[in-house]
Amino acid sequence: MEPNPHRHATTTSGAAPSVAQPRYLEIAHAFAARVTDGSLRPGDALPSLRTAATQYRVSKGTAIQAYSVLEARGLIEARPQSGFYVRARRTAIGSAPQPGLSRPTIVRASSKERVRDTLGDLVGSRITSLGSSFPDPSLFPMEKLNRCLASSMRHRSYAKTTADLQLGLPELRHAIAQRYLELGYAIPMEEIVVTCGGMEAISLSLQAVTKPGDLVLVDSPMFFSGMQLIEQLGLNALEMPTDPRNGLDLGLLDKTLQRHRVAACMLMTNCQNPLGFSMEEEKKRELVQLLSDQNVPLVENDVYSELQFDFRHSRAAKAFDRRGMVLHCGSFTKCLAPGFKIGWSAAGNYREAIVNRKFASTLGTSVPPQAAIAHFLRHYAYERHLRGLRQALLTRVNQMSDAIERHFPPGTRFTRPQGGYVLWIQLPEGVDSFVLFESAALRDIGIAPGPIFSARRGYRNFIRLNCSHEWSPALERTIQWLGETVRASSLGRGR
Amino acid sequence: MEPNPHRHATTTSGAAPSVAQPRYLEIAHAFAARVTDGSLRPGDALPSLRTAATQYRVSKGTAIQAYSVLEARGLIEARPQSGFYVRARRTAIGSAPQPGLSRPTIVRASSKERVRDTLGDLVGSRITSLGSSFPDPSLFPMEKLNRCLASSMRHRSYAKTTADLQLGLPELRHAIAQRYLELGYAIPMEEIVVTCGGMEAISLSLQAVTKPGDLVLVDSPMFFSGMQLIEQLGLNALEMPTDPRNGLDLGLLDKTLQRHRVAACMLMTNCQNPLGFSMEEEKKRELVQLLSDQNVPLVENDVYSELQFDFRHSRAAKAFDRRGMVLHCGSFTKCLAPGFKIGWSAAGNYREAIVNRKFASTLGTSVPPQAAIAHFLRHYAYERHLRGLRQALLTRVNQMSDAIERHFPPGTRFTRPQGGYVLWIQLPEGVDSFVLFESAALRDIGIAPGPIFSARRGYRNFIRLNCSHEWSPALERTIQWLGETVRASSLGRGR
Repeated sequence: MEPNPHRHATTTSGAAPSVAQPRYLEIAHAFAARVTDGSLRPGDALPSLRTAATQYRVSKGTAIQAYSVLEARGLIEARPQSGFYVRARRTAIGSAPQPGLSRPTIVRASSKERVRDTLGDLVGSRITSLGSSFPDPSLFPMEKLNRCLASSMRHRSYAKTTADLQLGLPELRHAIAQRYLELGYAIPMEEIVVTCGGMEAISLSLQAVTKPGDLVLVDSPMFFSGMQLIEQLGLNALEMPTDPRNGLDLGLLDKTLQRHRVAACMLMTNCQNPLGFSMEEEKKRELVQLLSDQNVPLVENDVYSELQFDFRHSRAAKAFDRRGMVLHCGSFTKCLAPGFKIGWSAAGNYREAIVNRKFASTLGTSVPPQAAIAHFLRHYAYERHLRGLRQALLTRVNQMSDAIERHFPPGTRFTRPQGGYVLWIQLPEGVDSFVLFESAALRDIGIAPGPIFSARRGYRNFIRLNCSHEWSPALERTIQWLGETVRASSLGRGR
Repeated sequence: MEPNPHRHATTTSGAAPSVAQPRYLEIAHAFAARVTDGSLRPGDALPSLRTAATQYRVSKGTAIQAYSVLEARGLIEARPQSGFYVRARRTAIGSAPQPGLSRPTIVRASSKERVRDTLGDLVGSRITSLGSSFPDPSLFPMEKLNRCLASSMRHRSYAKTTADLQLGLPELRHAIAQRYLELGYAIPMEEIVVTCGGMEAISLSLQAVTKPGDLVLVDSPMFFSGMQLIEQLGLNALEMPTDPRNGLDLGLLDKTLQRHRVAACMLMTNCQNPLGFSMEEEKKRELVQLLSDQNVPLVENDVYSELQFDFRHSRAAKAFDRRGMVLHCGSFTKCLAPGFKIGWSAAGNYREAIVNRKFASTLGTSVPPQAAIAHFLRHYAYERHLRGLRQALLTRVNQMSDAIERHFPPGTRFTRPQGGYVLWIQLPEGVDSFVLFESAALRDIGIAPGPIFSARRGYRNFIRLNCSHEWSPALERTIQWLGETVRASSLGRGR
């Protein structure tokens, strides 16, 4: 059977040091469950802090912590001189966006317009960069990482063997294997190959299981560097309709795999970018079974795995891989060390293919950032950093969501992500996100237009916004301007 | 016209700060020229240090420095109580190895045996690692680099824009452009793209100018990760006979290009690995002209450029590129910061293609090692480090050469490299370098067998040795054992 998936652990130098979930998170979780099952409804009052403390036999401080978590998650709100209430969400806008694709669609490599070659630059380089997928660096322990850079390298020599250079530093691969254990499944260190960021892991994985001209099944919308990768490798994309709340329909997937000769699937199963959903573990298990039955390898892009807001960590599909057909791709870029470009692959049966391809792609991975991350994982409290990061991201996602509700016109729909820091926003029918992109760029605001998330250039009236930046009056004005521009544009269309 | 190619400069933060060659190097150069032109012959006495000092109007200390340089370069030797003499070299062995390939030979991708997948590991991981291409880390300013890692990151945020991430840190690209200027030619910073080591630069370059099935003309023997790259990309290799002292015959190259449809050339023009020769600048100019006339792009692997022993730096073929058809690939791995994996490409017309491919290969390059190298180049004396490094490598190459002369049997021939730290050794006819490789591996000695440097698996009786390690009695014993084993093996053959 599977190990317990619900452990929350702090990383120390010992073996698999799993510790219980803090009490305040347990309490928050209990209340959240009552909101979910409907026994607490919008507008209902919560017990006072004193009552809650008595009820759960904790200090008032712990009760405050639990309510703060619920508040940050947007589940409850404090009313001055009154207490805490389950939050009502406005219904005019904010419901989930529509899938935007009704049936599986093949997009041939040759037919793709090359719009995004230039977009790549534009999306990221604006002053108000809501278009990029970089998290705000102030959320990360940069000073500690710098100390790690200095001290981890002081007493070590550089990779001396080809093996260390190609596979990555043993201490880092060991720490990654340990983290898998903490998350509730076992990946042997021998299977892990360190890569130059998550992108190299994904690129090598896709190369390992396809050849040019092959068909790759992907969820849609999908992160746009993945789109670019598919094009560069001369692959054809089979875009699947993906529900913004639940992901792929496995029945449809099964039928599609029977109808088309698919060389590989490339999917994000946790905090999907840009949709933000995480697939249920049970569904992941079924997914792996289904693909495995049809002999289709899964390239699992799991670089947002550690950013799940839920109290319970949802394991990757890799956890259910019995036949070595899941190529799991991870990264520290989004969860610990942006700019270090350290990722990894745990590629099951394809481990050798990854190693061979790595040899001819970058040969090895830079040693100092590897050593620094390994040092951090050994000597600092990674789990505590992650808890703070998730909390901050959730707060910012909620702030952005609230601002969109305030400023965007009726007919706008957007996701409630289960993790990560992006919102996928469906604008009223007829609004052209490229036009919005161009107007915003003139004001030095970067947004990501929907069509770059699709090989077939769908999602014309969708945008993705990066919510990782600290809330500020300037950001509020930016969202206000965007909302007004969308409103004007949709009125113009309506005329 | 070309800028003066003979400048030796120290790197500071100013613009193109070219300074004159130190006086002792000038004097050493003058004596070396007389040995080369035959006016000083083996066994001839040099002027006493006092006489030389008077003659050149320098201090005795400067004369000592000059003679030390000549001694380290193996040109002169000190005889106790007597003075300095031009060195005689034994002639029984030590003459240049033969080319080993008589005519251009096409090797189809499909026909290659896959011996080296496992060899890659074996070559590098032995205790006495004479087979790898890693330089001894003790030759590099590791402590300074660690200080740079710490201080360069302290006050900077990570790459925030896609442009910085994709192209590399502006301060590093600026420093690289400056270094080109110091070496006597101009490459605009805009052309430079930082890569995850030299290997990524070479890999992206080759991908930018070829597609699977294309024919790539290469020198032979050739560094073995290049061979692996060609195979991974599904390319066919056209191996050219390469003279160990002079490199390619341009007349033969011209004829070959007329006969075969070659998509690209991939060559090392400085300190070729494993042959060690640097092409004359005039020949590089002709090479570029010839390729340019035939519209064939040149992927110039120039990662050993800074390791030239000669008093004069020989510029890359890139210096003579008028049409943007040379894709110059550089790296700091061999000359400054092993393990940092920071390289770059200056790819002329193919710069956009490199950027696009980089996007889907690794997306970007790790920031801390880039920042540290840029910091080193700005605040430390790079040129002084390089002078010390070249001197140390030359000394070690000479020590290894001497040991081979002492211990290897007649019929052995080997290169006198003009830079770098490897020797290419031709063993007596019939000696099988794979057998030697296996016996050596049993004693934990790593050597690189000749056939891995050739797509067609030639060079059966050749080996490559890494000479970068400090000389020691253990190393002497290793070479002695190798020599005796080769002798026994050649006698066995002779029977």
